[in-house]
Amino acid sequence: MGSSGNGVVGGGGGNGVVDKGVDFAQYFCTYAFLYHQKEMLCDRVRMDAYYNAIFKNKHHFQGKTVLDVGTGSGILAIWSAQAGARKVYAVEATKMSEHARTLVKANNLQNVVEVIEGSMEEVVLPEKVDVIISEWMGYFLLRESMFDSVICARDRWLKPTGIMYPSHARIWVAPIRSGLVDKKENDYEEAMDDWRSFVNETKNYYGVDMSVLTKPFEEEQNKYYLQTSIWNNLHPHQVIGTAAVVKEIDCLTASVDDIRQFTSTFFSSVTFESRLCGFGGWFDVHFRGRVENPAQQEIELTTAPSIDNGTHWGQQVFLLQPSVQVSEGTDLNISFSMSRSKDYHRLMVVEFGCDIRHSSGTMLPPIKKSFYIE
Amino acid sequence: MGSSGNGVVGGGGGNGVVDKGVDFAQYFCTYAFLYHQKEMLCDRVRMDAYYNAIFKNKHHFQGKTVLDVGTGSGILAIWSAQAGARKVYAVEATKMSEHARTLVKANNLQNVVEVIEGSMEEVVLPEKVDVIISEWMGYFLLRESMFDSVICARDRWLKPTGIMYPSHARIWVAPIRSGLVDKKENDYEEAMDDWRSFVNETKNYYGVDMSVLTKPFEEEQNKYYLQTSIWNNLHPHQVIGTAAVVKEIDCLTASVDDIRQFTSTFFSSVTFESRLCGFGGWFDVHFRGRVENPAQQEIELTTAPSIDNGTHWGQQVFLLQPSVQVSEGTDLNISFSMSRSKDYHRLMVVEFGCDIRHSSGTMLPPIKKSFYIE
Repeated sequence: MGSSGNGVVGGGGGNGVVDKGVDFAQYFCTYAFLYHQKEMLCDRVRMDAYYNAIFKNKHHFQGKTVLDVGTGSGILAIWSAQAGARKVYAVEATKMSEHARTLVKANNLQNVVEVIEGSMEEVVLPEKVDVIISEWMGYFLLRESMFDSVICARDRWLKPTGIMYPSHARIWVAPIRSGLVDKKENDYEEAMDDWRSFVNETKNYYGVDMSVLTKPFEEEQNKYYLQTSIWNNLHPHQVIGTAAVVKEIDCLTASVDDIRQFTSTFFSSVTFESRLCGFGGWFDVHFRGRVENPAQQEIELTTAPSIDNGTHWGQQVFLLQPSVQVSEGTDLNISFSMSRSKDYHRLMVVEFGCDIRHSSGTMLPPIKKSFYIE
Repeated sequence: MGSSGNGVVGGGGGNGVVDKGVDFAQYFCTYAFLYHQKEMLCDRVRMDAYYNAIFKNKHHFQGKTVLDVGTGSGILAIWSAQAGARKVYAVEATKMSEHARTLVKANNLQNVVEVIEGSMEEVVLPEKVDVIISEWMGYFLLRESMFDSVICARDRWLKPTGIMYPSHARIWVAPIRSGLVDKKENDYEEAMDDWRSFVNETKNYYGVDMSVLTKPFEEEQNKYYLQTSIWNNLHPHQVIGTAAVVKEIDCLTASVDDIRQFTSTFFSSVTFESRLCGFGGWFDVHFRGRVENPAQQEIELTTAPSIDNGTHWGQQVFLLQPSVQVSEGTDLNISFSMSRSKDYHRLMVVEFGCDIRHSSGTMLPPIKKSFYIE
């Protein structure tokens, strides 16, 4: 579930894991609001994907036990029960669990679906399960680090023959063009102009020279406008070069170490003359079952740039300022790395490197830039 | 300092006091941003009031020791030093203290101003002080409950003959008219219409009946749109009846118990025919010194509705829906009470009662409504 939350980093331990109270105040709490749940329930692409994944693969559910990690309103647990599950454990950390329980009863499924309020890391189930289903994906897949809780659930509660819903996930990156680069650059320049006036006035009018704070203010504004990933709904025409997978996750076997930090290098060929304004990132997940017990119908949920099938996740935009003129055939050698914020494990730091070689053979100076996913 | 922060309540102890990590994540952290400090430094009414309070009362500062509670960028500490203080202790809980220290040095006051990073409740000063200066006021004066920290500072560090800057504070309430009532009512109705479509679609398309959640959703939306105080810049013409002070604070003697919870009843006479849409609330503070050592020039900082002298605090609007037609001479018997949210001591719950007697003598049914200050 993508949620912008409040984006503020709290102090954490060395690994960025904050204490439970802080984690609740900064992360979990927004999910306790029905308004927020509704936003996700209104995402048709998301809903259709999970609905079809379940109901076109009833053999995975009929007579089986299911664990829904982060049940929210209870929708996936309810569908699992309607698809024939014998028993569904629906775990939810927030008071939304009370609404889930109400909803289960109103849909006459209280004999199948047991809603449990608690964190996945702490709840104790009476048995292991055949299926773990969860909608855990944050912006750019891993923001919010909810998959950690799914891994925990899997390691504690999934039978050796059990299945993950979704079974696979991928993070994609592509070079893009975007008007945001000019907008954010303008916003930044305006903020700096405004600051300079402010420094003048404060000196002349109030006798305090604040010019020594110009540099830290500039850094703060630059970080905000130009070094923080931006939620955006990209048009497919904004993708100007071949996209690539920078991370693949097998949900049955991935560990937290696999996703905590990783790098990827790939080539992207520019497909038409344009300005390289940065990179767009998105993800997809698949419902394939497992080799020993595959899906009858594989379902894909993709958040790639789309005209008609956008999702509430949008895509993430990482801006390069200044933008760079590129033409068809320009080669981009892109390196990508992602790691967790040292202050808060649910937020990320991303680094892009980009070597640009025009089709003439000219190499541009290499680009390297870090971004915060707040 | 008024800050909308993120308005999210965290779980707290019985008295709503949350643990330090949560308090930092929900409250203090926004003050670590220069952008936020600048917003307050650009509030000319605020700046002028403190500047004049200090520089027109230099006798309170010359050769004296000063404590600035919550120094932020350091501005009040710097002015205190420029007004002739012998020593200024500038306490700041966030990393903004580092910028304050830089600013002090850049203005050649490092021999007078000592910036200390820490919470007022914990820092240890080498001596008691002659003056405690602080800009602690939140929306509607007490939101953020920062005055608790000023009281703590006063009780620990102010000399028996010491002075508080500001010395007094008052909360005001008046009946108002406002287009917000229609706007919020429309927003609420739209949200409910949207919800009803959502319930239909989810039932028809996805086989899950969510109608049992309509009532809690309605409550959540009603709370959000109509039961939460709204920041607004009121025009003086929106005040339709006599305003009254609902709380007076002597900063030299007030205790936390005095401000934690209080009630007030007053009469307000409607001054012209209009719709009573609710109540507006604001505050003022005064710099009067103390009886034994008064200000040479008393300064007032008011956040009353104003055409030219608005502040970043605005006013708070508490909407009554439906609004009530009233005419000149209608008497309003208003009761007001404020207490702290049981979940978070920095947020408030306010209750208004209103008995309306038209000049004809007709009494309307009494109104009673609670609001959250988030």
